Amino acid sequence: MPKTKPPLVRLSELAAGKQGDFFALLAERTRAARRDGKPFFTCRFRDSARTATIMVWSDGEWWDACESDWQQGQFFKIRGVYQEHPTYGPQIEPSNIRHVNDDDKTAGFNPFDFVEHSRYDPEAMFQELWKLAESQIDDVPLRRLVLTLLDRQKSQLKNVPATQKHFYPFAGGLLEHLLSVAHTCLHLADKYGTAYPDLQPPLNRDLVMAGAILHDIGRTIEFNEDVQSVQPTVSGRLFGHLMLGRDLVRDTARELGDVNPELVHLLEHIIVTHLALPEWGSPKLPLIPECLIIHHADDLDAKLEMYVRCLSRDKEPGDFTGRDPVLGRQLYKGRSV
Amino acid sequence: MPKTKPPLVRLSELAAGKQGDFFALLAERTRAARRDGKPFFTCRFRDSARTATIMVWSDGEWWDACESDWQQGQFFKIRGVYQEHPTYGPQIEPSNIRHVNDDDKTAGFNPFDFVEHSRYDPEAMFQELWKLAESQIDDVPLRRLVLTLLDRQKSQLKNVPATQKHFYPFAGGLLEHLLSVAHTCLHLADKYGTAYPDLQPPLNRDLVMAGAILHDIGRTIEFNEDVQSVQPTVSGRLFGHLMLGRDLVRDTARELGDVNPELVHLLEHIIVTHLALPEWGSPKLPLIPECLIIHHADDLDAKLEMYVRCLSRDKEPGDFTGRDPVLGRQLYKGRSV
Amino acid sequence: MPKTKPPLVRLSELAAGKQGDFFALLAERTRAARRDGKPFFTCRFRDSARTATIMVWSDGEWWDACESDWQQGQFFKIRGVYQEHPTYGPQIEPSNIRHVNDDDKTAGFNPFDFVEHSRYDPEAMFQELWKLAESQIDDVPLRRLVLTLLDRQKSQLKNVPATQKHFYPFAGGLLEHLLSVAHTCLHLADKYGTAYPDLQPPLNRDLVMAGAILHDIGRTIEFNEDVQSVQPTVSGRLFGHLMLGRDLVRDTARELGDVNPELVHLLEHIIVTHLALPEWGSPKLPLIPECLIIHHADDLDAKLEMYVRCLSRDKEPGDFTGRDPVLGRQLYKGRSV
Amino acid sequence: MPKTKPPLVRLSELAAGKQGDFFALLAERTRAARRDGKPFFTCRFRDSARTATIMVWSDGEWWDACESDWQQGQFFKIRGVYQEHPTYGPQIEPSNIRHVNDDDKTAGFNPFDFVEHSRYDPEAMFQELWKLAESQIDDVPLRRLVLTLLDRQKSQLKNVPATQKHFYPFAGGLLEHLLSVAHTCLHLADKYGTAYPDLQPPLNRDLVMAGAILHDIGRTIEFNEDVQSVQPTVSGRLFGHLMLGRDLVRDTARELGDVNPELVHLLEHIIVTHLALPEWGSPKLPLIPECLIIHHADDLDAKLEMYVRCLSRDKEPGDFTGRDPVLGRQLYKGRSV
Amino acid sequence: MPKTKPPLVRLSELAAGKQGDFFALLAERTRAARRDGKPFFTCRFRDSARTATIMVWSDGEWWDACESDWQQGQFFKIRGVYQEHPTYGPQIEPSNIRHVNDDDKTAGFNPFDFVEHSRYDPEAMFQELWKLAESQIDDVPLRRLVLTLLDRQKSQLKNVPATQKHFYPFAGGLLEHLLSVAHTCLHLADKYGTAYPDLQPPLNRDLVMAGAILHDIGRTIEFNEDVQSVQPTVSGRLFGHLMLGRDLVRDTARELGDVNPELVHLLEHIIVTHLALPEWGSPKLPLIPECLIIHHADDLDAKLEMYVRCLSRDKEPGDFTGRDPVLGRQLYKGRSV
Amino acid sequence: MPKTKPPLVRLSELAAGKQGDFFALLAERTRAARRDGKPFFTCRFRDSARTATIMVWSDGEWWDACESDWQQGQFFKIRGVYQEHPTYGPQIEPSNIRHVNDDDKTAGFNPFDFVEHSRYDPEAMFQELWKLAESQIDDVPLRRLVLTLLDRQKSQLKNVPATQKHFYPFAGGLLEHLLSVAHTCLHLADKYGTAYPDLQPPLNRDLVMAGAILHDIGRTIEFNEDVQSVQPTVSGRLFGHLMLGRDLVRDTARELGDVNPELVHLLEHIIVTHLALPEWGSPKLPLIPECLIIHHADDLDAKLEMYVRCLSRDKEPGDFTGRDPVLGRQLYKGRSV
Repeated sequence: MPKTKPPLVRLSELAAGKQGDFFALLAERTRAARRDGKPFFTCRFRDSARTATIMVWSDGEWWDACESDWQQGQFFKIRGVYQEHPTYGPQIEPSNIRHVNDDDKTAGFNPFDFVEHSRYDPEAMFQELWKLAESQIDDVPLRRLVLTLLDRQKSQLKNVPATQKHFYPFAGGLLEHLLSVAHTCLHLADKYGTAYPDLQPPLNRDLVMAGAILHDIGRTIEFNEDVQSVQPTVSGRLFGHLMLGRDLVRDTARELGDVNPELVHLLEHIIVTHLALPEWGSPKLPLIPECLIIHHADDLDAKLEMYVRCLSRDKEPGDFTGRDPVLGRQLYKGRSV
Repeated sequence: MPKTKPPLVRLSELAAGKQGDFFALLAERTRAARRDGKPFFTCRFRDSARTATIMVWSDGEWWDACESDWQQGQFFKIRGVYQEHPTYGPQIEPSNIRHVNDDDKTAGFNPFDFVEHSRYDPEAMFQELWKLAESQIDDVPLRRLVLTLLDRQKSQLKNVPATQKHFYPFAGGLLEHLLSVAHTCLHLADKYGTAYPDLQPPLNRDLVMAGAILHDIGRTIEFNEDVQSVQPTVSGRLFGHLMLGRDLVRDTARELGDVNPELVHLLEHIIVTHLALPEWGSPKLPLIPECLIIHHADDLDAKLEMYVRCLSRDKEPGDFTGRDPVLGRQLYKGRSV
Repeated sequence: MPKTKPPLVRLSELAAGKQGDFFALLAERTRAARRDGKPFFTCRFRDSARTATIMVWSDGEWWDACESDWQQGQFFKIRGVYQEHPTYGPQIEPSNIRHVNDDDKTAGFNPFDFVEHSRYDPEAMFQELWKLAESQIDDVPLRRLVLTLLDRQKSQLKNVPATQKHFYPFAGGLLEHLLSVAHTCLHLADKYGTAYPDLQPPLNRDLVMAGAILHDIGRTIEFNEDVQSVQPTVSGRLFGHLMLGRDLVRDTARELGDVNPELVHLLEHIIVTHLALPEWGSPKLPLIPECLIIHHADDLDAKLEMYVRCLSRDKEPGDFTGRDPVLGRQLYKGRSV
Repeated sequence: MPKTKPPLVRLSELAAGKQGDFFALLAERTRAARRDGKPFFTCRFRDSARTATIMVWSDGEWWDACESDWQQGQFFKIRGVYQEHPTYGPQIEPSNIRHVNDDDKTAGFNPFDFVEHSRYDPEAMFQELWKLAESQIDDVPLRRLVLTLLDRQKSQLKNVPATQKHFYPFAGGLLEHLLSVAHTCLHLADKYGTAYPDLQPPLNRDLVMAGAILHDIGRTIEFNEDVQSVQPTVSGRLFGHLMLGRDLVRDTARELGDVNPELVHLLEHIIVTHLALPEWGSPKLPLIPECLIIHHADDLDAKLEMYVRCLSRDKEPGDFTGRDPVLGRQLYKGRSV
Repeated sequence: MPKTKPPLVRLSELAAGKQGDFFALLAERTRAARRDGKPFFTCRFRDSARTATIMVWSDGEWWDACESDWQQGQFFKIRGVYQEHPTYGPQIEPSNIRHVNDDDKTAGFNPFDFVEHSRYDPEAMFQELWKLAESQIDDVPLRRLVLTLLDRQKSQLKNVPATQKHFYPFAGGLLEHLLSVAHTCLHLADKYGTAYPDLQPPLNRDLVMAGAILHDIGRTIEFNEDVQSVQPTVSGRLFGHLMLGRDLVRDTARELGDVNPELVHLLEHIIVTHLALPEWGSPKLPLIPECLIIHHADDLDAKLEMYVRCLSRDKEPGDFTGRDPVLGRQLYKGRSV
Repeated sequence: MPKTKPPLVRLSELAAGKQGDFFALLAERTRAARRDGKPFFTCRFRDSARTATIMVWSDGEWWDACESDWQQGQFFKIRGVYQEHPTYGPQIEPSNIRHVNDDDKTAGFNPFDFVEHSRYDPEAMFQELWKLAESQIDDVPLRRLVLTLLDRQKSQLKNVPATQKHFYPFAGGLLEHLLSVAHTCLHLADKYGTAYPDLQPPLNRDLVMAGAILHDIGRTIEFNEDVQSVQPTVSGRLFGHLMLGRDLVRDTARELGDVNPELVHLLEHIIVTHLALPEWGSPKLPLIPECLIIHHADDLDAKLEMYVRCLSRDKEPGDFTGRDPVLGRQLYKGRSV
């Protein structure tokens, strides 16, 4: 009688002693040797909520695959029995282990489930950003430029973090950040457009919105797309996201051909100077007022995310968090109001 | 037959050769001597649009008053004939000159007319700020604290600039700035309160609004109230507006007695740290997220005002403004979009 | 026959194998588990010169108390036999363990004995500082202000360090520092008062002395009073000792009512600016000469204490000390003159 | 009958219309031309309290001497009649003008009378410094080193300012500063020697005194000796007073031969590091505690002199002095206590 | 009989009283009014060695042209008599004045003659730089990229200074600088290529040479081409010469199509980072060794030019030059060796 | 029959199981205790390519010597059998161990073999530097000064690194650096001497060469000579290599007596200022152009060595090296051209 195929479950939902099929990330693969000199691998597989160990012995079934083919950061489909060892903790007794393949992706495997990621659905965020661009940029060629870039960078936008370690440092973080910045800029562009009716030319609302949506577009090529191991690309390190973002705008505008060259110029300037000061990484000072709005909306959104994350994660007793290495300060968490 | 009393006009509206009564600011009083050794004063009186000269000779009618009583920065009511001399320019031939008195104020004399001032009516701005505080701060004792302070500093609030030379450097400028910052903060407090529903305690909207309205309250005692010659007070120089603002909150809260002490503490912290970084004058780093919102709303509003003013006033040809001494840069004005 | 009550001794004076009653600080309490899964606590108790271990087993007499009631940083009275294990080092076999109580304090228990503390008796230092204030400040209301503040902060003054880690970082350190600074300032105020006889108003000797004594008074509320675990308070972190010290002076002067308001103002200014430069934490620059004397007396005294402590504690061979993390340098100790 | 030799007077004491012999500094010599093209010199001669003009015409008696030999900054003996012209002010009608010569110096001419100088007599200050060195340095060879240097640099010490523009910027200023610093150091060396009895080796009182007296000895060769026009020498600019001072100590100690080499080394280290921090010009950090005492005594004395000078000279109305360009701040002068 | 056409001379070579035709730059055009109210222009025309004045009266021949058409910075052909007025200095009595036209350029008019310019002939320098590129870059497509860029920017290269005020601030200065830097880099690339034979990949000599020649290519579009009034362009101010230079390389390489993409990338990186440090304007740190060679060759050449120019132009007496505002120091010129 | 004397070999060339005589550095000597309380030493001896362990037991032959006489950093001659233990790795079973003595040195023992050292032979480098000085400095007394200093510091020059950890941090590194800098300076002195023919006095080639060769001469006394454990000397820490180098030049020039004093002065100035900026450790700014050449040649050579070393040693996969702690960046190594 054929073996019943076990149910597809989450590793973190398997009860002790139960068998199941699940996807897992190989988070750590360490080689060591026993007293008698025989080598073995300790492999730690995890999903977002549990890590379990598989010991791979040199005389066992998985030795060759583990030694030659398994790499940290890869995803696997595993069939096995979950156990909790009193000393060694969570263990898997595997009956099958193979790399995730394209069929799995069709069947619902999603790398996002294995890494820290945005609270929001990337596709929904992308649609919202798209609609903002579509509805709030009046100049048709400029709008097409923005939408073209969103379209082309869609896959990366949905995956990459805003930064590796500083703010929104998780999959989908860039998109979450862009959406928040764009909404703030929409409000501020309207507000200040009204406040300064005599400015000539008036504060350019389209430019503010295009700048808000594209200010970090260079980050989509600053990082690779491996959500489980985000690293800067070579271009990312050699030029940085400011110049890479300006390249994207410059090349796409040239290709499209119909965007007002002055608007392209100003949009490039916004991208290049939105960090505002040389000591924050801006190669030039911002020379137009639109840039200020984007800078402040961006900086506030980034810093606030860091504060909230720092306050939310600190579980130690005491009135202050530990010193946040990025913020360089201990936040006050002991308040009741 | 009694001399007809000339009409009360503006100095800048008097036609050449016509007589009138007008108010004027003594903008400059310089003593010099003629070749024969006789001293004289050159006095330049002005309103917001014209400056005219009165020569005071040592053997003339006005010598004693001018030498003993007239001071630069004082206001006068003058009756005289306006002339335009081909070489020496606008002149007044006075028939009467006296200091402005309280009756004049009742009769409509307003120092604001003689100095650079906000585009908006101070009383209207004050009412709007008051209503914001009244309607948007839910905590009753905190709201009362804010309103009490607005009430007590009302006269100064309506007169002082936000800063002497940096941003909103004109009469009523502080109020214009506060109102703008408060509106921005209202938007951002709602936005980020919604964005981070799990933060414990949640982002305190009352605190953001109180902080936005009071963050620069210390400036009302940092400067004197002479709209025509704003100078820091002794307290202003010895302690600065951050500490003075905190004093106002601390003393008033103690007097009122019913504000949650923790709220008072956090509000003081916001006032003291809203400049965010030591290099910008903040004596401590901000340790709560509310402060970030106020800092960015404040900083953006200040910088944008400087950009707009710089762009609006530069009338020279060329694609860039002259170097703004405060901003340390030349803004781009040669754009058409 | 009743057991003889063992003598009250110091832990560090107990010979191996001897029983005694002694006070000890619970310096470390770590939970671990044996191979068989049974938990235990390793508790390290110490006085100023010896640390000894008590193992608390889950099936032993002290388990419940240890698990529920004992906290690091608390003081205990212990009766036990002292042993020196060849592998595990100093051990206590306890027959009684209880928290220190008020009777113990009356009977001579002093937390100072268990922490690093000043070489001088706090009470004697306090008396000396008091007498300095009493004899060297001529202005009666100012003197009363200083004495009132000394009196009210007496308990904290006698306990807190000058700083957590930088200078005089030990119980009573603040008092030792204040006394030294006050004596130096007394000398310098007389010296420079004589050197600049024509200064108007003359260098204010009373102000120098009041400033010297009170310049760090804010530190008494910047730190909690637990000599064995000094930590900044919430106020300490939100405002810092400069503003807290100014508050104490401002509030007390207002309460006393008779101090010359100008003197109060200048004294507040001294407290707020005695760190002299923004990069050293001073929110404003010192604008009166008295402040310079206090700044230099303070800074020299702090730095010299760090140098002497660094030179005295380094026992390694070589001509230079290890790099002092606070001073950022390696001092020269290999000299013979 | 021979002309009566007029009395030797001060220029500033000559009554209008009276003749006298007086010494004067040629403060300004400007060449110009009359309408008819004839050149002339306007020469302004002064003593410490009055400046008077001599016009030198191209067809007059003094033309050749003025054109070829007179230089700004030189001293002259002048016989002439003093006049006060209503338009052109104080004038001299000279009957004789010649350079000051050695006989004049014997006869009491003193350049000090014509420049800003110390309130104290240089010779008296020198004697006091000498006696301090003689009485307070116990180590005989070290004392001889200090006295030898004082002796050799005596003439410069009595003339040069401490700095060109910063502190004690007047003739004799260096000596006044050294004396003040040495007295402060004497007090502090005794105080801290007593405070840290266990330091090994103890704080070296001799070294503190030698360092205090010699810390700025390099300034005697950093500047030229022209009291009326102090300029850095070539060595002064190429190496600075720290290295030049160390050279003097190093060379003299080598020549004397009997000073403990370790003491010489430490004294050189004090001279080189007494500015304490790289940002203040110190090429190395101070690695011995003695240096701290000298640094703080030096810095306080310099800054206090700047404060007192700034406060004493400002005669404008208002509560604050003008911005002192060296201190970078406006001092509070409007106090009454 | 027709008037003889006067000879074409240099303004600075015309003898007083002689007539001539000459080219001149209108260096200054100032409007003023006579006592009687009639306006006039004072126009100062100059060549490289002499400035002479033409007064244009409101009732004279040149009034209309001067008022409507003449602008500062324009070139003119003038026929006139040169005079030297005893009071008012060099004057021209013009008989004809017109703008320079294209025929004049053909006939030898050269703006270079009227502005400060390189000691070397621009065309000769250009040829030398071209030959360096042609002979020293082995990689054919890379060489073609460099030559294409030189060819396209030839006109600007020959005209623009290296910088407006810092180094080589004169027409042709950029070319002179590039040539010097390229020669130094050639030497250093060979030297260090040999010194580090084991580096993998080896130091890329082609890349060093391409980088040396093109490191400042962006300056050709950072400035306009008016040799008599060099100003940054809009692009120059919005993006700076680093990004503009990278754009030129990036666009041209894409157009040519055959350059190794990795070489293009590295060349762009060199251009963007050749200022080496953020505080010197480099947006990223240099991550390849070739960049160091170009940075140091560039920086040395720039600074040395500033030193030599400062030393050569200072004609005042004294051992040191005046303080150079760019270098921030006074150089030693009083040496004899 | 006498034992056969084993061959003198390198430790790293001994086959397992073979006996040999070899020299080794005692790299680590750690005392520990067995379970039974008996102490032992683990001694690790090494040459440049292998480290092997000798266990010294308290009851063994080498105990007394090891406990009393052996120190880390000393060299030994060892006779023993080499073994490779499966768990504990390379071991020596010694039959003799003694300190290296003078005979060994004669017989070819060279400490260089045991430490990281220059690729070039120190003696050959020294000769090359000597010849450069001899052939390229025309001024005879200046040349003699340079050669005298090279001669006197010869031993240290051949041993010390350029710096402890930054650039050329290995034995002989200083000499390698000096030679490279001197060659670069020779090229640049000729180049710029030709480029600026009108400079008065001309660029001094002799001075450039003397400065290049001696700029770091102070480092020969900044470090001790123990190639296996380089440490700063007391003088090195108290004064730094800039002042120590100037001392060497100053003292030697005084002793030789015939060098042009101005040349000595300028050479001292070059040594003291060759780091160019205060933030890089230069106590004064360079005031002569020769110094710029030496500064840039020096700085480029140092940085390039760091880049090459960093790129050569990093063996990890990836496109970038790890973050170099001295350079503060991750270099690009993943290039193929």
